[in-house]
Amino acid sequence: MKNFIMQDENAVYFECGFSCDNVIFLSLNTDNYFITDARYTVEAQEFSKNCEVIESSNLVQTVKDILKKNKIKNIIFDPNDFSYAMYINLTSDLKTKFTPKPNFSKTKRIIKSDDEVKLLSKAAKLGRKGFKELGKYIRKNGYKQTEQFLFFKGIEKMSQSGKLDLSFDPIIAINENAAKPHALPSKKILTKDDLILVDAGVKYKRYCSDRTCVTSANFEKLSFKRDQNFKNKKHQKIYDLVYKAQLNAINNARCGMKASQIDNLTRSVIEKAGYGKYFVHSTGHGVGLDIHEFPNINAKSDVIIEDNMVFTIEPGIYLPKEFGVRIEDTVVMRNGKAVIL
Amino acid sequence: MKNFIMQDENAVYFECGFSCDNVIFLSLNTDNYFITDARYTVEAQEFSKNCEVIESSNLVQTVKDILKKNKIKNIIFDPNDFSYAMYINLTSDLKTKFTPKPNFSKTKRIIKSDDEVKLLSKAAKLGRKGFKELGKYIRKNGYKQTEQFLFFKGIEKMSQSGKLDLSFDPIIAINENAAKPHALPSKKILTKDDLILVDAGVKYKRYCSDRTCVTSANFEKLSFKRDQNFKNKKHQKIYDLVYKAQLNAINNARCGMKASQIDNLTRSVIEKAGYGKYFVHSTGHGVGLDIHEFPNINAKSDVIIEDNMVFTIEPGIYLPKEFGVRIEDTVVMRNGKAVIL
Repeated sequence: MKNFIMQDENAVYFECGFSCDNVIFLSLNTDNYFITDARYTVEAQEFSKNCEVIESSNLVQTVKDILKKNKIKNIIFDPNDFSYAMYINLTSDLKTKFTPKPNFSKTKRIIKSDDEVKLLSKAAKLGRKGFKELGKYIRKNGYKQTEQFLFFKGIEKMSQSGKLDLSFDPIIAINENAAKPHALPSKKILTKDDLILVDAGVKYKRYCSDRTCVTSANFEKLSFKRDQNFKNKKHQKIYDLVYKAQLNAINNARCGMKASQIDNLTRSVIEKAGYGKYFVHSTGHGVGLDIHEFPNINAKSDVIIEDNMVFTIEPGIYLPKEFGVRIEDTVVMRNGKAVIL
Repeated sequence: MKNFIMQDENAVYFECGFSCDNVIFLSLNTDNYFITDARYTVEAQEFSKNCEVIESSNLVQTVKDILKKNKIKNIIFDPNDFSYAMYINLTSDLKTKFTPKPNFSKTKRIIKSDDEVKLLSKAAKLGRKGFKELGKYIRKNGYKQTEQFLFFKGIEKMSQSGKLDLSFDPIIAINENAAKPHALPSKKILTKDDLILVDAGVKYKRYCSDRTCVTSANFEKLSFKRDQNFKNKKHQKIYDLVYKAQLNAINNARCGMKASQIDNLTRSVIEKAGYGKYFVHSTGHGVGLDIHEFPNINAKSDVIIEDNMVFTIEPGIYLPKEFGVRIEDTVVMRNGKAVIL
């Protein structure tokens, strides 16, 4: 194993099973060091594995001392993981050569262990529970509420009133706001037969869930299931098309394919129907400790898909000033095929 | 004015009155450029001032093209604002010299305009309203609730159920958890006469509020006022001491002092009483668009305090495994003296 240095919280957690927001993790041959300040040393000693915990009031100086003492010639770092200021501070007055290797931790984490898949599966299950509770709330009380308020209720229901961390701030968007892939909650009010898009996820033991559902505000029957009935015919047409594209990818994704081929499984369906230019993003992204991991499922990626990769399949069609539909599930590759978590 | 480049959201907002999470802002002599992607150009054109909005699918390349076209020799950047990867990408194959100037935007923003003070004052008012609503909730329903649930209620009440953004995730800590300056919410249950610490703030038009109150869970009378009565005598003694230290700083802070002298106004009171080693952080920090701005109010800062500086005064005493008390208000210097916002 080569020497490396990192500070990203999730990258560090992956190495040793513990992390915090002020740490530098150093891996030198067989010795690993978890360097942190006095606030975190007690917990770090209790929970981290395979590393020595070092308390320091000047993390960078401690790193430099260790590199000098061990006469380290080369060390790998991710240039996205350190600010320019931090890089200059770390490398000044030091003989160790810092070699940039972008995303080396995410590359390492691209294939999940069986234990990680279990955690991701549990996160997905808790995420589903959140959607169900949110659906129940909107069914009974959502009428004439603002997006802002429903956004807040999304946080409440997904997090089980603060028990769970969220993978990201939920997106709750009505009609034309759903046409913006990254909509912010507005004062827009939910009324009957509106289209509602909800994109949300929770964390279980730091592992993320990610799912997007679209439904119709026919209050008595509202539910975040996959088959949906819309009163508005155009809503129905676009929903059915996106759903068909997503199913095509879920049913036909195979290990051994390039990620770009999986992207094409959704994109070709949408393009064939003439809506290609309204599918403005890639088909999906890996999910793990980070909400965005590898593999990227896009038109350019040559990554070969393997068992135990976990990623989203989320085609969408966005009709500006009208509405948008995105259907997203997180899948794991198992026995060569995609299985929804 | 010198040439500069920045991407920090709040720094960019300060320059032109608009911002987003994918922008590079370039200031060259008298021309300013707001370079962003297609998601943000419409709003940027509507809301930004004194700059040309440029749409780009490759922000870095667009920046390089502009620097080349204008034959820019020197440009200032904040080395904390750019990752090492971004710095390399920006500077490669370019003649422009990038000069690091740490925190140049925060330095610029250290004295607030009268308009900014008004916004900070409004944020503080909305923050107070949130504390009041949270207090009402705990008084009626807080008994036997977990910290996690109270944390969630803190988000609900401070944000007015999603209407306002928060300055940061609130801290709600009971007894020994309040002894950790950065406590995470636990399953600990609130019972009668517990000590509760709440640190929370909201944003108004992007400007932050920041306040910490400590109170006693005597449910029928609970309130986040400054005078507090504790049944536990040690709670009372420590609270009164921290309060005395905070008042000493608020009453005696003057323009013309060094920031370190204001730090000493709180620290000397606590040290004199023999608790100096339990006051483990600095007295305060500037507040503005960022929750942590300049001036830093600590023992080492030589910054001279001036009118229209806005900062927190927040002494604390943390008794490990027992409890902690921090009392924090945000003040503005006005006519030479500190006034609580």
